[in-house]
Amino acid sequence: MDIFDLPMVQDLVRQAFAEDVGAGDLTTQLTIAPEARARAEIATRESCVVAGLPLIRTVCELAGGGVEITECVAEGTDVGPGDVLARLSGPAHVLLTSERVLLNCLQRLSGIATLTARFVAAISGCGCRIVDTRKTTPGLRVLEKYAVRIGGGFNHRMRLDDGILIKDNHITAAGGLTPAVAAARVGAPHGMKIEVECSTLAEVAEALEAKAEVILLDNMSIETLSRAVRRIGGRAIIEASGGVTLDNVRAIASTGVDIISVGALTHSAPAIDLHMTLFLE
Amino acid sequence: MDIFDLPMVQDLVRQAFAEDVGAGDLTTQLTIAPEARARAEIATRESCVVAGLPLIRTVCELAGGGVEITECVAEGTDVGPGDVLARLSGPAHVLLTSERVLLNCLQRLSGIATLTARFVAAISGCGCRIVDTRKTTPGLRVLEKYAVRIGGGFNHRMRLDDGILIKDNHITAAGGLTPAVAAARVGAPHGMKIEVECSTLAEVAEALEAKAEVILLDNMSIETLSRAVRRIGGRAIIEASGGVTLDNVRAIASTGVDIISVGALTHSAPAIDLHMTLFLE
Amino acid sequence: MDIFDLPMVQDLVRQAFAEDVGAGDLTTQLTIAPEARARAEIATRESCVVAGLPLIRTVCELAGGGVEITECVAEGTDVGPGDVLARLSGPAHVLLTSERVLLNCLQRLSGIATLTARFVAAISGCGCRIVDTRKTTPGLRVLEKYAVRIGGGFNHRMRLDDGILIKDNHITAAGGLTPAVAAARVGAPHGMKIEVECSTLAEVAEALEAKAEVILLDNMSIETLSRAVRRIGGRAIIEASGGVTLDNVRAIASTGVDIISVGALTHSAPAIDLHMTLFLE
Amino acid sequence: MDIFDLPMVQDLVRQAFAEDVGAGDLTTQLTIAPEARARAEIATRESCVVAGLPLIRTVCELAGGGVEITECVAEGTDVGPGDVLARLSGPAHVLLTSERVLLNCLQRLSGIATLTARFVAAISGCGCRIVDTRKTTPGLRVLEKYAVRIGGGFNHRMRLDDGILIKDNHITAAGGLTPAVAAARVGAPHGMKIEVECSTLAEVAEALEAKAEVILLDNMSIETLSRAVRRIGGRAIIEASGGVTLDNVRAIASTGVDIISVGALTHSAPAIDLHMTLFLE
Amino acid sequence: MDIFDLPMVQDLVRQAFAEDVGAGDLTTQLTIAPEARARAEIATRESCVVAGLPLIRTVCELAGGGVEITECVAEGTDVGPGDVLARLSGPAHVLLTSERVLLNCLQRLSGIATLTARFVAAISGCGCRIVDTRKTTPGLRVLEKYAVRIGGGFNHRMRLDDGILIKDNHITAAGGLTPAVAAARVGAPHGMKIEVECSTLAEVAEALEAKAEVILLDNMSIETLSRAVRRIGGRAIIEASGGVTLDNVRAIASTGVDIISVGALTHSAPAIDLHMTLFLE
Amino acid sequence: MDIFDLPMVQDLVRQAFAEDVGAGDLTTQLTIAPEARARAEIATRESCVVAGLPLIRTVCELAGGGVEITECVAEGTDVGPGDVLARLSGPAHVLLTSERVLLNCLQRLSGIATLTARFVAAISGCGCRIVDTRKTTPGLRVLEKYAVRIGGGFNHRMRLDDGILIKDNHITAAGGLTPAVAAARVGAPHGMKIEVECSTLAEVAEALEAKAEVILLDNMSIETLSRAVRRIGGRAIIEASGGVTLDNVRAIASTGVDIISVGALTHSAPAIDLHMTLFLE
Repeated sequence: MDIFDLPMVQDLVRQAFAEDVGAGDLTTQLTIAPEARARAEIATRESCVVAGLPLIRTVCELAGGGVEITECVAEGTDVGPGDVLARLSGPAHVLLTSERVLLNCLQRLSGIATLTARFVAAISGCGCRIVDTRKTTPGLRVLEKYAVRIGGGFNHRMRLDDGILIKDNHITAAGGLTPAVAAARVGAPHGMKIEVECSTLAEVAEALEAKAEVILLDNMSIETLSRAVRRIGGRAIIEASGGVTLDNVRAIASTGVDIISVGALTHSAPAIDLHMTLFLE
Repeated sequence: MDIFDLPMVQDLVRQAFAEDVGAGDLTTQLTIAPEARARAEIATRESCVVAGLPLIRTVCELAGGGVEITECVAEGTDVGPGDVLARLSGPAHVLLTSERVLLNCLQRLSGIATLTARFVAAISGCGCRIVDTRKTTPGLRVLEKYAVRIGGGFNHRMRLDDGILIKDNHITAAGGLTPAVAAARVGAPHGMKIEVECSTLAEVAEALEAKAEVILLDNMSIETLSRAVRRIGGRAIIEASGGVTLDNVRAIASTGVDIISVGALTHSAPAIDLHMTLFLE
Repeated sequence: MDIFDLPMVQDLVRQAFAEDVGAGDLTTQLTIAPEARARAEIATRESCVVAGLPLIRTVCELAGGGVEITECVAEGTDVGPGDVLARLSGPAHVLLTSERVLLNCLQRLSGIATLTARFVAAISGCGCRIVDTRKTTPGLRVLEKYAVRIGGGFNHRMRLDDGILIKDNHITAAGGLTPAVAAARVGAPHGMKIEVECSTLAEVAEALEAKAEVILLDNMSIETLSRAVRRIGGRAIIEASGGVTLDNVRAIASTGVDIISVGALTHSAPAIDLHMTLFLE
Repeated sequence: MDIFDLPMVQDLVRQAFAEDVGAGDLTTQLTIAPEARARAEIATRESCVVAGLPLIRTVCELAGGGVEITECVAEGTDVGPGDVLARLSGPAHVLLTSERVLLNCLQRLSGIATLTARFVAAISGCGCRIVDTRKTTPGLRVLEKYAVRIGGGFNHRMRLDDGILIKDNHITAAGGLTPAVAAARVGAPHGMKIEVECSTLAEVAEALEAKAEVILLDNMSIETLSRAVRRIGGRAIIEASGGVTLDNVRAIASTGVDIISVGALTHSAPAIDLHMTLFLE
Repeated sequence: MDIFDLPMVQDLVRQAFAEDVGAGDLTTQLTIAPEARARAEIATRESCVVAGLPLIRTVCELAGGGVEITECVAEGTDVGPGDVLARLSGPAHVLLTSERVLLNCLQRLSGIATLTARFVAAISGCGCRIVDTRKTTPGLRVLEKYAVRIGGGFNHRMRLDDGILIKDNHITAAGGLTPAVAAARVGAPHGMKIEVECSTLAEVAEALEAKAEVILLDNMSIETLSRAVRRIGGRAIIEASGGVTLDNVRAIASTGVDIISVGALTHSAPAIDLHMTLFLE
Repeated sequence: MDIFDLPMVQDLVRQAFAEDVGAGDLTTQLTIAPEARARAEIATRESCVVAGLPLIRTVCELAGGGVEITECVAEGTDVGPGDVLARLSGPAHVLLTSERVLLNCLQRLSGIATLTARFVAAISGCGCRIVDTRKTTPGLRVLEKYAVRIGGGFNHRMRLDDGILIKDNHITAAGGLTPAVAAARVGAPHGMKIEVECSTLAEVAEALEAKAEVILLDNMSIETLSRAVRRIGGRAIIEASGGVTLDNVRAIASTGVDIISVGALTHSAPAIDLHMTLFLE
């Protein structure tokens, strides 16, 4: 089952149509004959990593179908200004109604893939992963995390039910880091590693003692990160997070952490400037 | 019916929970007693215009309810780093499960309101409106356009069915601008004005002749905009669009256009850095 | 995106099947072999304007598909008793299960189109539009307003969000007609005209002064309508409403109003007597 | 579980709001303060049997809640012009947004109850039931059949899965009336009676022979109906259908049939002219 | 409309995918090329009556489509260990994602059909029906009752709205069995028989007097059942229920009852051990 | 967010009502006054571990509400024949309509919890977990896995997206066990352990070499299991599966495996015989 066949993705596109089209495209209905046919090109006005091309089919099908689609580049390709991503041919009404829904999806996913690719490039050679967070747009989690993968990043847990991540509140409530890890270990599914968020080296030491399998170093300076990495010494996977930017990501990676998580990948990636040009036949 | 009571908004929040929580918050279930209670503060780490506060109630209700909410600032307030937006008190499980869904909504809506407010401030005194476009995030149209209003902007049409906007494709298909406007006028609901997109002064002249009630000047230079405004001479509402930035928006507004539409308001506003701090009781 | 491809229309037909079929057509299952094939004719027992033919495909697809459909008349055609609207051929089970859902849709839409056409015919030559209202059947708004268009009428606003119509309550709440129009103008999307409901000539005068773009004359006598039309003198679009019947509609149109809105089009049009005859093969 | 608590009824009202309100009531938002409160009266302009009053609560809750409702007459009461059905008090925005959805429901259900009551009155004393058919408005089956009951009528089967009704097509496919009844009897749930549609006295005789438990006399003249009733002689329940009007229903009932089914109850009942008056506080 | 085309069945399969696949089959995505193709065989490890084969198409379509399906046995066939039920050929990803959803459906439906067939065989020749109850798995009512039919059983009422079954609570509330039957008769749809639950012979006598059309003998000993059957003497259909097992069902049937209802058919049938073997191409 | 507040659980209960109630409880409507009140007791006729009590509130709320609920035992309690699980008090119509939906849920969840508890008891002291599989009833995954936890078992992965489990097909497709593990490691989220299914000791050796973190020993004899456990020597978590019964589970546990997965927990647990007794007031 392809991600674009998932019920939740199909539902999202239906919802996108519902909110964009309402009871119909008035202007098109009044000015273009129902039987008119057209060709269309989707192109970019800026450099980007393309993500979301398979949605073209989903969107056009839901808009009425009958559209022939030719992808001109592969998903994940690095393209430049003026490059054509796909060519479409079919009923003009279907193409025109699809336009905005399609571009709204592609410009966002490509924006995320592009920003992810920049982070990935910035740490090239460091042997470290860029991963996303749960800071995604409501309703778009699955697609946005897909775009991160297209951009060369990796996914952190998808939801609260597919990973154990013990944060300060859990530690306080459980009466300390050690008992929190113990409690988690008792009930955690056997396929999940236990990850603990640490803000100080003392916490790192305690997490190691408690045999945490992943240690999240939260908002530490480069120097403290380095010391934490040394102290951990390969006994746990190390994730760094907090205040990561394109400017400091390489320094962070150079400390030897395994994983760097970046919320901005999904919550602040600017949209790519895509457009669709129509040629009536 | 408040916007936050709309079926589609309730459905969006339910969907946000479904994708973030899945079968339950494993870590919290394993480390925090079900009967634990907590207080929480939602605060901002950067200056912003707050938007989305009424969603706190919606989210907490869907997460299980029983949360007392105190809004510390009014919707639309300009706040600064460290300011507390709201205080919550209730079951720790409900607060922890609500946290990410809540912040993901608020950080996005506040981001849009904040960017809108900057555009609005940039043209202060020009007697000109900043409006949004249909370039919104799939599924979030209604909320994002609400955030634009909170930021002091105005809404362009909500969907393809609540406005007539004749673009180049419609003009080509109808055999010219004049017949396109005529066709639209025949069938347009009597409460809608007919808007026509023009790229040249010649088109502006034809649109005026055809008695278009709104003229959209697309991607024109400041100089051409000025000439177009003079030529229209108050006979139509004038909208400018295309390539609008915080740097050039005041120059555009100074040409005398009535409306400036900015896609970036909704597709590229960076999220505001909000966080929730929990205090277990 | 054709109106019949809209998610909400597809959902309505699914709902119609759910409520009509439940767990299956017991009688047919017990008496007709699953592999039986049949032809069917949909015909009318009375004169009408046909509306809803494209739904045949939607309904038959949802009922299991495999039906060949031949439309014998075009959507909107004026037909007489005995005329065949469409011929179908396919699995007997699919045709029998589709029958009632199909006829229930067509008889209602054709009823609305037919009544609309009678109103339109009654004011022929008056240069005036017949429009519908929001007095539609819950769940059928989009289809019923479509049927009005098929009958030669026009649509008033589709929903509360795609038009500004200031009524007495708004006027009272805003402290008068003039401030109400002013308040509306401040926030109304720039593509919408402001319509004001007036019951007296004094209100008409005030509405003109406030530069209302559409004036709704509510429940006025023919004489008062005439005086209102003269007073307005082309400075606003004029809509008449209230107590409009086939008997008085021409007199109303003759006063010079631009638009006559008729609630009965959608809330009281009697169903057309259609039937489907099946021929087993 | 009250009919108005059924998931499908709740969903219908949500859908009615979605289609009527869209993204919000623009005019009210622009002209009435959010905190304004009002009282409202729902009254009728014509005589009718009231049906649908419990929906007031459902509708107001979905519109935002906080409305106090006083029903002034009981469901099913016969009221006259000017009578007030219910008084409401609450937030003005909630009342205004509820108005049209509420009236659209009540005017339709009351229309059906009223027409049903007229048919019931017309055969008063005949010991015969008026029943509805499956010719209902798509999506409203449950509510419309409820309104028939409120009007004093009875329900025929609700769906294709809760009754056995053998029609001409089933007879043809099964190779005759007798084998069709036999086939149905083999598989029919033991709590259902087998009903057979007959158009001639010969068919009636065959249906009796086959031990049909209900015989539907379709489109027979009064005289033929009388002869059929005599021939059946109490050995089966008798239903008459086809071309039933207020003019001929008593004659039909007088033939001694047990049940008269009338499609017009649900497909052609004109809406009752109800209105809501608002008093701002 | 085939049962597998019913909206509720399509929705159930979508829901089954949503809960089993979530955001995608991680292991398959990481280890198998998207374009890989495979063949698969669905076979049984134990004897059973096969039910649910038509779901293969539904499931594979929803999982992405492109699968060629060959059913090797007919629905309802009695098969033995090692027998192949169906062969599939198509994209490996689609087959792998479909596997668990498909088997979970088939193993349950076949389990029910198999258990039903054993009950049916146990009373072979007794002229008595095995019927199901409303004790079904939430969400699977329609499919489970279908499986009962495939196993040779019959369905009791599908829901609370398609049959009249008066139990002790109704009798108490109505002030006795006789008034309860009378009340039911007044309002029951004319196509439904009135069934009354009786626990004693006295109640049976009263039910006969009240002209109940079906009498449900609840939890009676074989001897009491026999006496009840004799007392009823063909004047009502007789259903026996309560504590029915494969051990006692023949004795119950031999008392002469018409119908035996067995809750275990649907609530306690063990799943059949089916498996799918994949052959990569 | 409690599991019973999850949108998918709420939807399941709504669906259960839709399929059980349809258009309403006919018998109750005809025989019991709408205002009647009653008390009810839910009790068990056999020993079991109770699971699902929190659903009582969910079900009664959806059925109309107004029910006071007193749980007489805690969730997960071991109860015996005749024990009362909960007492309810409220509108008779709400209680009667809730009865079957409620019992259908509770009897199934308690059946699963009870069977799980028997498996857990059977390996008491072995230091080994009983876990479930993905062989659950379509639509009930989350609730059934919850019942396993109530019975003292643990959950295996919830879905295909929250765990890596490499089976034979993945191994074949990837060109061997070692490359399959390598491929999985490249893309697996960092919080997930990689589990590999092995059928032979040679595969176990290869899996160890490939550094699989969990090894699933599939369908091995007790002797082979023991040898595999020794060979693994603590270097991976060990899961045993295939043909596990109450008879052999202790022997399997005694080999030293960490985890035993049992499909029967969810696919073949017989329902517990629960009933609800009503006392009208």
